[in-house]
Amino acid sequence: MNLSDSLVHQLLDKMPVARFAVTRSDGRAEAMPIVFSRVGNQIFSPIDGKPKKTADLERLRHVGKTPESTLLLDSYQKDWSKLWWLRLDVRAGVCTSSHGDWCEAVDRLREKYPQYRSIPLFKGTPTMIVMNWNRAHSWAFNGIDGIRSWLSDTAEQ
Amino acid sequence: MNLSDSLVHQLLDKMPVARFAVTRSDGRAEAMPIVFSRVGNQIFSPIDGKPKKTADLERLRHVGKTPESTLLLDSYQKDWSKLWWLRLDVRAGVCTSSHGDWCEAVDRLREKYPQYRSIPLFKGTPTMIVMNWNRAHSWAFNGIDGIRSWLSDTAEQ
Repeated sequence: MNLSDSLVHQLLDKMPVARFAVTRSDGRAEAMPIVFSRVGNQIFSPIDGKPKKTADLERLRHVGKTPESTLLLDSYQKDWSKLWWLRLDVRAGVCTSSHGDWCEAVDRLREKYPQYRSIPLFKGTPTMIVMNWNRAHSWAFNGIDGIRSWLSDTAEQ
Repeated sequence: MNLSDSLVHQLLDKMPVARFAVTRSDGRAEAMPIVFSRVGNQIFSPIDGKPKKTADLERLRHVGKTPESTLLLDSYQKDWSKLWWLRLDVRAGVCTSSHGDWCEAVDRLREKYPQYRSIPLFKGTPTMIVMNWNRAHSWAFNGIDGIRSWLSDTAEQ
């Protein structure tokens, strides 16, 4: 199923969590939940102040070694007729505040997540994973109407 | 954070959805949402009757070629103090009804998912992905108590 860029953008802007799939140093695929914001066709995910032993996260090394990865958005619901997912093939990298879209990405993170009023947006040197996608693949139990319904239900909350 | 086998089992039994990370034929890591049941230390995920063009899913070829994969369980909530995730390193394979635990896995799927009263549990030749895990890695914002809270909140629903 092909989604328009506009629909992909809306899903990325509304969905609070995605699962980022990377290749580990031992070659195994692994996924992690991430928070993120979107600026144009780029997705930014901060190394934030949620409890962690170190800001030198393995995910930074993984994307440094293997940038080709994927991002999954999906919404699980008991009513399976509402199920859908969107998967983006992305090229990921690590960026710091010298990135041209840094400030906008940060603004959008603070807007999307009120949680950052009490939790630091960064741990250590401000760092984000930045992703550019080149292919979107999607599925929905009820086709594109199911995705549009999710967007309108979410807008009402 | 180390979780006991008993806690891992409880999380697998309560959580309706997981994200399964596999290595694609082009070498890229990708994740997909799956439903599943647990029998002992094995996890079963059916190729079910949700709308799909074919039962010959790419995921079957992916695990056939690269069995080493991971399974992610996590619960996103607006209250980030309740966040947690569990990731299992698994060896995945494809099985049919000749598998010794087939019937128990099927019974548990039907028990866990009332949705299978109206949606076929299988599409085409009954087939499941079976996973055995050899390593569990986990994180929780509030440590193990956050995971225990999630389990008791879920039990009340």
